[in-house]
Amino acid sequence: MDAAFTEARELDRDDPLAGFRQRFLHHDDDLIYLDGNSLGRLPIETVERVTCLVRDEWGDRLVRGWSEWIHKPKQIASKIAGLIGANEGEVMVCDSTTINLFKLVVAALESRPQRQVVLTDDLNFPSDLYCIQGALRRYPGTRLEIIKSEDRVHLPTEVYRSRLSEDVALLTTSHTSFKSGFLHDMKAVTAAAHDVGALVLWDLGHSVGALPVDLGGSGADLAIGCTYKYLNGGPGSPAFLYVRRDLQEELTSPLWGWFGQKDPFAFSLNYSPADGIQRFTVGTPPMISTAGVEPGVDLVVEAGVQNLRLKSIQQTEFLIRLWRDHLQPLGVSLNSPEDPTVRGSHISFGHPEALRIDKALIEEKNVIPDFRAPDNIRYGVTPLYTSFTDVAEGVKRLRDVILEGAYKKYSTEKPSVT
Amino acid sequence: MDAAFTEARELDRDDPLAGFRQRFLHHDDDLIYLDGNSLGRLPIETVERVTCLVRDEWGDRLVRGWSEWIHKPKQIASKIAGLIGANEGEVMVCDSTTINLFKLVVAALESRPQRQVVLTDDLNFPSDLYCIQGALRRYPGTRLEIIKSEDRVHLPTEVYRSRLSEDVALLTTSHTSFKSGFLHDMKAVTAAAHDVGALVLWDLGHSVGALPVDLGGSGADLAIGCTYKYLNGGPGSPAFLYVRRDLQEELTSPLWGWFGQKDPFAFSLNYSPADGIQRFTVGTPPMISTAGVEPGVDLVVEAGVQNLRLKSIQQTEFLIRLWRDHLQPLGVSLNSPEDPTVRGSHISFGHPEALRIDKALIEEKNVIPDFRAPDNIRYGVTPLYTSFTDVAEGVKRLRDVILEGAYKKYSTEKPSVT
Repeated sequence: MDAAFTEARELDRDDPLAGFRQRFLHHDDDLIYLDGNSLGRLPIETVERVTCLVRDEWGDRLVRGWSEWIHKPKQIASKIAGLIGANEGEVMVCDSTTINLFKLVVAALESRPQRQVVLTDDLNFPSDLYCIQGALRRYPGTRLEIIKSEDRVHLPTEVYRSRLSEDVALLTTSHTSFKSGFLHDMKAVTAAAHDVGALVLWDLGHSVGALPVDLGGSGADLAIGCTYKYLNGGPGSPAFLYVRRDLQEELTSPLWGWFGQKDPFAFSLNYSPADGIQRFTVGTPPMISTAGVEPGVDLVVEAGVQNLRLKSIQQTEFLIRLWRDHLQPLGVSLNSPEDPTVRGSHISFGHPEALRIDKALIEEKNVIPDFRAPDNIRYGVTPLYTSFTDVAEGVKRLRDVILEGAYKKYSTEKPSVT
Repeated sequence: MDAAFTEARELDRDDPLAGFRQRFLHHDDDLIYLDGNSLGRLPIETVERVTCLVRDEWGDRLVRGWSEWIHKPKQIASKIAGLIGANEGEVMVCDSTTINLFKLVVAALESRPQRQVVLTDDLNFPSDLYCIQGALRRYPGTRLEIIKSEDRVHLPTEVYRSRLSEDVALLTTSHTSFKSGFLHDMKAVTAAAHDVGALVLWDLGHSVGALPVDLGGSGADLAIGCTYKYLNGGPGSPAFLYVRRDLQEELTSPLWGWFGQKDPFAFSLNYSPADGIQRFTVGTPPMISTAGVEPGVDLVVEAGVQNLRLKSIQQTEFLIRLWRDHLQPLGVSLNSPEDPTVRGSHISFGHPEALRIDKALIEEKNVIPDFRAPDNIRYGVTPLYTSFTDVAEGVKRLRDVILEGAYKKYSTEKPSVT
């Protein structure tokens, strides 16, 4: 693989984004971290930001800190809005992705009371499916239709189009699929749903921060997303939601709380919703985790999401080329789209021994990918800090694990919790 | 007020819990902080704990950190369980208080489909009322009945008993009322509700960490609570919920997500709930905020909640005595119960100029109480770190603000965000 490393070094040397790597903490230079799509690395700035919030703001200002904290979720949301083609006032940072999905699924369903179907696909993240299943229990006669992808990798727009009808209240799926990395055509799918009068909700978890999203230009109605992947917000950092401006009055979240109340400190006994996107919030936000989101978002904004996309495609293309040369001959399959225009920023490699190989990569080779049942080793490329040399090393070490049979001593039980 | 200060110094000298004050950060020794029931002070240990989670665990271990983080909410919950008379496995740290309330209100209502009423009172925290109003919208024919307290201070158990009937699915209120500090008789109210077959849900926000709660001994069914008040978990730190063991299978949360799924990493397309209390969780928890909860809880456990209650009563009794001598003559009323057995750990003082007085206390006198509309100045006593001298100072400075008329230059608009 010498040629691959030579090429990788040249690509790194020419990479205009290479400097961003130094803005993240690196404790271990030998570690090949390919799981930024599960948990992004720690921006160095975040250590100071969080410590400052705790020690100076909470410790010193105490409850007075709320006069600034209260604005933080909206301020961070404005920055995220710029990454996803949304306007200010259309995005809010709050709660978890799943809870935000619940709010919007119920709101959508209640706005289309004559329609019985929520349409999704089996490439969508299962927590989303669970959330919808839980929500629909309340509405007798409604059902979740899960389109099966033929190859477990792609889900063409035509398939959605063929399943859309005037029974569909809401179409919702992951913009980038968590396993295969398939990237939906947001504009085309949204248009197809709108053709039958359905609303569309996009889960941007594996898209935001890795590639440009254009909610506004696509006419999308609703979206949710996660800040701990490509936005580097930290473990379990609060999620966000998007509600297109003209829908904010029309749709009603089922989760009412004092943060979504018009004048919370009047302590009225009756709920009346706050103006705009604020009404989709509920209780007091976890401020330490929330404040920790900002430096990671700032880095994405600074790098420019168009630039990140260019590098990401260059890196996943390089990765696929190395797979073809070095891994495919060893029985590793490609469980992701070959066409970069329908692919996000991670690649899933298939292998019958994927779980044990994943364990060996972590334990023996200092590579962190992740395992996604039943047979995927997921290599996430995070263009902010992944180098081309990381990509080549990731392939080399994976090849070594298979050639050496190092995985055989690991059990086939229990994947890691990532 | 010299005698009061002499007495306060003696009480401080004899206070067996006095040493705990040094375990919290004090930037400003002149500050009289009487709002620990809104946001608890920062435990010194928390600075290190949070920094360590960010820098060492996230920064170094990256996604591997989840193998330990995943257990954290349950571990902290076990410690909280010991403070509220619950067993291990009956409490979980997750989401916000309001979201936890939504889960349990809906679950309770669906378990009593023949009943139409959720019963509460106007001393309950408004966010709870909003949440229930939002939940009930989805159940035609149901309604929230809000019992009006006659004096805005107390709500005797007999009043509840007179309003309970077999129409009531759920009785829910704040164990300690946020404004007046009235403390319900948990055992008697629970028994009254059970007599008509209703479930009972207690909001422990203003109780947990300040006084012993005995959910188990009271036969309570459900509870929720907040960790950022007397548990010192930090701004907006995650909440907790309690579901009595025998109800965990019977009740179904409407919020389904992968953290509540039996085997989340199998990525099944269909939800099947995890065992026990875990099924009441939803999405990925905000770990930085969650980890920050533990040191504050540990301090309460170490001090002993019985000891804290003894000191709290001693302090609120002292405060009321000083009110009678120094504030009542100036037109300040007592908007809290005089009987300490039906009172939590804060005292509300009434005054027609309460809002402006609150502002002057903060801006001119370095006292932080809070204002609760329409006319309450709330003095929270946090026995872990409030000294008797703080109590005397709080009274002296309040007296001075009124005597000097210092409040008159402040506007009557817009209370602070606390």
